[in-house]
Order: sequence, then C-alpha cells, then structure tokens
Amino acid sequence: MAGRVAAVELIGRKRDGDELTADEIRALIAAYLADEVDDAQVASLLMAGVIRGFTTAEAVAFTEALIDSGDVIDLSDLVGPTVDKHSTGGVGDGTSLVVGPILAAAGCQVAKLSGRGLGHTGGTLDKLESIPGFRVDLAPEELRDQVASLGLAIAAATAELVPADKRLYALRDVTGTVASPALIASSIMSKKLAGGASHVLLDVKVGDGAFLPDAEEARHLAELCVSIGRSKGRRTGALVTDMSQPLADGIGNALEVGVAIEVLQGERHDRYSELCAELASAALQLTGVDQAEARTRVDELLRSGAALERFRDLVRAQGGDPAVADDPWGVLPRAPVIVDWSPGEGTIRSIACRRIGELAGRLGAGRQRQGDTIDPAVGLELLARVGDQVTAEQPVVRIHARSEDDAAMAREVLGGLFERTSQPVLPVPLVHARIGLDDPAGPQGDAALSAG
Amino acid sequence: MAGRVAAVELIGRKRDGDELTADEIRALIAAYLADEVDDAQVASLLMAGVIRGFTTAEAVAFTEALIDSGDVIDLSDLVGPTVDKHSTGGVGDGTSLVVGPILAAAGCQVAKLSGRGLGHTGGTLDKLESIPGFRVDLAPEELRDQVASLGLAIAAATAELVPADKRLYALRDVTGTVASPALIASSIMSKKLAGGASHVLLDVKVGDGAFLPDAEEARHLAELCVSIGRSKGRRTGALVTDMSQPLADGIGNALEVGVAIEVLQGERHDRYSELCAELASAALQLTGVDQAEARTRVDELLRSGAALERFRDLVRAQGGDPAVADDPWGVLPRAPVIVDWSPGEGTIRSIACRRIGELAGRLGAGRQRQGDTIDPAVGLELLARVGDQVTAEQPVVRIHARSEDDAAMAREVLGGLFERTSQPVLPVPLVHARIGLDDPAGPQGDAALSAG
Repeated sequence: MAGRVAAVELIGRKRDGDELTADEIRALIAAYLADEVDDAQVASLLMAGVIRGFTTAEAVAFTEALIDSGDVIDLSDLVGPTVDKHSTGGVGDGTSLVVGPILAAAGCQVAKLSGRGLGHTGGTLDKLESIPGFRVDLAPEELRDQVASLGLAIAAATAELVPADKRLYALRDVTGTVASPALIASSIMSKKLAGGASHVLLDVKVGDGAFLPDAEEARHLAELCVSIGRSKGRRTGALVTDMSQPLADGIGNALEVGVAIEVLQGERHDRYSELCAELASAALQLTGVDQAEARTRVDELLRSGAALERFRDLVRAQGGDPAVADDPWGVLPRAPVIVDWSPGEGTIRSIACRRIGELAGRLGAGRQRQGDTIDPAVGLELLARVGDQVTAEQPVVRIHARSEDDAAMAREVLGGLFERTSQPVLPVPLVHARIGLDDPAGPQGDAALSAG
Repeated sequence: MAGRVAAVELIGRKRDGDELTADEIRALIAAYLADEVDDAQVASLLMAGVIRGFTTAEAVAFTEALIDSGDVIDLSDLVGPTVDKHSTGGVGDGTSLVVGPILAAAGCQVAKLSGRGLGHTGGTLDKLESIPGFRVDLAPEELRDQVASLGLAIAAATAELVPADKRLYALRDVTGTVASPALIASSIMSKKLAGGASHVLLDVKVGDGAFLPDAEEARHLAELCVSIGRSKGRRTGALVTDMSQPLADGIGNALEVGVAIEVLQGERHDRYSELCAELASAALQLTGVDQAEARTRVDELLRSGAALERFRDLVRAQGGDPAVADDPWGVLPRAPVIVDWSPGEGTIRSIACRRIGELAGRLGAGRQRQGDTIDPAVGLELLARVGDQVTAEQPVVRIHARSEDDAAMAREVLGGLFERTSQPVLPVPLVHARIGLDDPAGPQGDAALSAG
C-alpha cells in the first residue's frame, strides 16, 4: 500500500459500491496504524461502507486487520473446551457473573476478557470491583495460569490486545460511522478471537436498553458475528435476547453482584436467572451437548452449589473477599440513603430501560465519559416488573443513593419512566432467536451472503 | 455549532439521506475553518453527500459558506454589465484569451480571475505569462481600476478570495469526494460570485479531455451552476461544449497564445474560433442582446480588429510586450527542437484528448503537481483533425520540445493516440447544449429540483 494515493482508489471503489478484497482492507488498516493513511481517508471509506454496505467477507477482513494490530492469547494447551461469552451490553445485564462459574463447573475453560461500563450500560469489571479487594488487572500469563487451575478468570483486556479497535472506534464515534453491522461485528469478534477461546457465544441484546433497538438488525448482527467466528475456525453461536426492560432486578455494581450471587445460591428464579441458565446451556451446546441435556446439567450445577463454589474460588483467586459468596449483602458496600418509590396503582406496561440505566449512572453507578470514577454501592432495585399489578402504595423501585438530594432527583426522574395501564400486559419473550446452536461448526446459510 | 458533537448529528442525518439546512451547512464549514470540526468529520459528511446526493439548496448553501470564508470583490460601481466567463477546463482550451477582448470591445466590463494549469489541463495565467513581461498578480484595487479604464483585466485570484475552497478541495482530493455535482458547482460558483461579476457564463466541457466525460452529467452540472448563480441574483447561463478532441490547434502555453492572436487577427476559422465566437455571443445574450444579433456583433468586432485592439491594450496594461498582438510568433518564446510526426495514411477517427494534454505536460507545458515550473515554449501543434483524410507522409502533429530526447519520447507516445479508419467519420458537434440563455434572469425549471 503506497499510503494516501492507494487509499483514494480504494475509497472510490467502495463509494461506487464495489467489494474490497481482504488484502486491500488489511493493507489499508495497517497503513492507517502506521500513519500513512489519515483519519479523513479512513472516515470517508467507512462512511461509504456504512451506506453501500460491507459484505461478510469484508467484515472478516476487518476482523483480521484488527487482530493483526496487536497480541493474541494462546489457550490451545488448556485441557477441555475454551469458552467465551460476550454480551453487546444492556441494563442490569450481569450474566457473566453467573454463566462463567456455571461453565467452569461444567468442565469448560473460561478466560473472560471484559470491559467497563459506559453510558447507560454497566461493565463486568466495574461490577466485580465492588467486591472488596477484587483485582481485574491480570497479566496474560496470570490469566492463563488461573484458568488452567480453576477453569475461570475474568480480567481486563490489556492495551496490547486489538489496539486498532480503540483507535478505529474513536474515529467512528465522531464521524457518524458507528452504525455498520460489519464494523460492529468486526469490533466484537476481533476481541473474542484475539482472546483465544475455541468456543464463542454471543448474547446480542435487542430493545430500548440495548445498542440495537430493532430485532431484525440484532439478528443480522448475531448472524454476522457467527459467520466471522466460524470463518476463523471457532465454534460460534448466538442468542438474541430481550433488553426492553432491565434484565436483573439490581442495577448498579454491588447490587448486580449481590443479585448474581443469589442466583448462584439457587435463591432467585426470574428473567435474569433464566437467561443465565439459557446462555450457559447454549455455550454447552457449542461444545457438542444436546440442548435439553445441557439445560439439565446447568440447572443441576446451580442446584448443587457447584457453580457458587467456582464463583467463590474466582473471588479468592483474584484477591477478593470470598465471604461475599455466602453473605453478599453483608460484604458488599451499601449506599447511605435507601428509599422506596412507587408509581401508583395499576399494571406496569413498560419500563424505560435505557433511561433506567442512565439514572443509575447519574446516581454514580456509571460513567458519562471514559475515566470517570464510579460509586459501587449506588443504583436501583426493581421490586416489580412489566406485567405486574401493583397497589397504590406498593414499592416498585428501591433507590440506593449517596445523598438525600440524589434520592430526590431519582424519585423525580422515575416518575417519567414507568407506564401503567388498567389492561393486562402480554409478557415479552426473553430469547428472540437462537443462531448457529444446532449445528455449531457448520455453514451458516443466509448470513454468509451479505453483511449490510 | 458546538463543534465536534453537533457535527456528528449532521453527519448522521446526511448519512441517512436527509437534507441539511443552509444554516447547518454554513455553520459546519465555519466550524471546520475554525478547527472546531476536523478533517475526518467533514470527509465523512462529504462522502455521505456524494452517495446520497446534495440538493440544489444544499449546493447554494455550500457556495455561500465558501464565499463567507474570505473577501469578495465589489464591481457594482463600474459602468456597463460586468461579465465573467469560466471554463471547467480542457486541452487547448484558451478561449478566455479571445472572449475577454471581444466582450470588452462590446462594452462589457470583464474582470477575469483565472487559475493555473494542473494535470492534463492548461491555465489562463500560465498561457499569458508566456508573453514576455506579462504580470498576473494584480491587487484587487489594481484589477478594478484596470477594468474601469480598459474594460478588461485577467489576474490571479488572491489567497483571500474563497480560501475555504482550496482547503476543502485538498481534503476532497484524498478522500474520494471530488465527484459530487453539488460540490463541484459550489467550488466553481463561489469563486465566480466572490469575483463580483453580475453576469456569469459557464463553459462546461464534456468528453475525454474534460473533467466530466459524460454529457448528461455535464448538463446537470451546468444547470446546477446556473441555479446557484441565479439564486444569488446573477444573470447566469452555460454552454455544454465538446472536449472529445483538443479545442485549439496549439496545445502548450505560447502555442495557445499564438493561435488565440491569430483568431483575434481574423486569420483563423476553425472549431476554436467558432467556440470563442459562440461563448462571446452567449455572454452578450446574458446582457439582454438577441442571439442572432449578438453573433453578428461578435463577428464584426473580430473582423474590424476591435477585439485585437483590446487584447493589445490588455497586454500593455499588464506589463507585457504589446508587439505580440501583431507578430505573435516573433515575440513568443520558441522551443529549440521542432519536428513533425505522422500517423500514416487514412481518415482520423479519434484523438485521445486527455492523453494529448498529458503529453504536452510531459514535454514541460504542464504541472504534475502544484508548484512545478513549466516551460512556456513547448507543446504540440495539431495540423489535422478528427474526420480529416491524410496521406502517408502528411504531418499531423508538430512537436515543440526542449530536446531531441523529449521529441523522440513524444513521437513514441503519439503512436498510441490517433485512431485511423478507411471509413468517413461524422463530425462531432461543438456545442451540446445551451442553458439559461433565452431567459437569463428567469427560473430554471428542472435544474432547481435536485443536485445529485
């Protein structure tokens, strides 16, 4: 690639709707990282691709180009299937805290690289750090060793893993080029593939609290991620799941960890526990277990306490207080102001999911921008759900706040986030689609044709 | 405009096919020039517009934003109509050298701001500088004063006129966003409007040697320029004219000036002299003269020597040797090596126009990039034309070169640029379309609807 001049030709072809070759895309991204091609040229090419569409082959090439930019983790000498699960992000979406321990208890090797929360969504690392002493900055060999001994580690991705993704995302963020299924899928999958797992399960969220509000788009993204993973020889599958209301009843870092531990203790049976079990079962399906058999095993690992035991091991291995596994609410930090709120009598028709996440963020649970500090104790507890009938005085949200002022702010905001009705409300399905699970190694049909 | 953040919203709307308001476009360009919005954001927005299309209203807004970036020239106190003629550029396309003097002789005020050649096209300033002593760097007040006394001045645009155009063009050039009718039209018209003329005639070239090879695209661009000019209260019209072969028989700076003087002397009657007369007549039509009457006047101004007299005055006023008007080939520089070339017997079916321009450039008549120095004496003379039957030894091109090596190179290249046939060849029309001339102040119908 002769830098800027060659880039103009590629941009022109993408502008006119042509498909670029894998070599061209890899060379372009390499030239960009070497500062031979500038931001304006890459932004222009990405915009052309957002409008004209990138093919699946182009999405694979972007994924490869991103992986090429940094280190990759080699987990190939671990005994047993290496498994990674990734969620596209949502509100009260702490499934990794439960699914990881279940899979480790089932004999899988789970080396999970997680992120931090941004905007209305939470991040697994922030949640785990609400456990006193818990440490997420494992070196790659530390991560690998812990997985080898416990079957489970959850750590921050290092800066050496897919460094191009961060740079490209920052450019897309300011140039209106985020909304490309191919670019989103290559960003997700490059990190999963560099992370080294042989089995990858995606949880693509759809609904108001998700990145993608549209079910068809979410399905398309899921299919694309599965195609990319398979093209690189990984067993890859996806669930498309509901994010039209918060998933767990706790929203906020310590609140989400506490609720996750209750699920691991077998004490909670709700949408959140159900999705954790479905995700763990789907991951086991990827390893070759039949769907019904997988679910039976998962339920047994929760019932027996085997999954909770792995969680306790995880916390201990990463420097946290293992007593949290037995007495979460005694160990986790607690907000100084806890007050209840009620929307009044009626059946709850909807909960403004994204805005619930934003409100938890304003209380201190999240970041408005990268680098903000967060308060692990604050957040919101949901005491009723869409479809529930509540009386006039029945508490529906428990606010965990740093101050009376914050609590008052939250009460005021909450007034606009719950719709009530006098009619019955149909339940929203939890799992919209299951992709690539019945034939986890095979070709993927339609999804291979076009990436949009 | 709050800079980068607001820009993302505009980019997203353009990406999705929305029309931006004039205020939004003006604010965006202003923020770009103030370095509050960066290259990548503007490139991304322009690519979205290239693919989705900009409306005529958006093209007008871009034109205004460009004009806003610098000075404008006020010619409103000059007596008589102020007229500017602009060509989109081609090979052997020195019509300004003839049309300016004709219009001045007809009582118009011609303040012509010209450019330099780049790539395969020549520039009026380079051509005039082949006249010993001729000076093109007039200050704005000098330009105005000369027009007031002679009716004619031809000078370089100053850096203060539409500075944003240069910056935006440099960005478009490397980001695949040149090919937008709206952006091309706004670039052309911003300079014409800032130049202050009340009457603007465009000569939009079409064919292999032109920027636009397609007649429909050229017509669309012409209509768009006319719409923009009229929206700003200028009498604006356009001819769409042939550039499928070089226009004048001389290609190269001194060669083009010599041929132009022969036309002004009334000694040449060919495609070039005909187009000069048509352009001058069209410009007079814009001032309200009937088409047939305009052409009669133009022919008389050429026949009487009145136009040649104005050319002599122009050369004298701008420091050049006025003797050039009477003895061009005696005054203009002459290349040391002059040799003839023949393609062999047959009827000339085509001349590769762009490549003829590029060859003249390689001989030293043009620039490969901005800042290259040029040789005024070198170039090519065409001694036969498309449709002409030539004998085996009849010279068809006279090469004017700096060295025998250059001449040998030119002979070799020329071998691939002329197609011959044994069949008769239909003549190519010189003027493809006339736009806005019958109703120079009125609305413009279809062109107002969409800019593509």
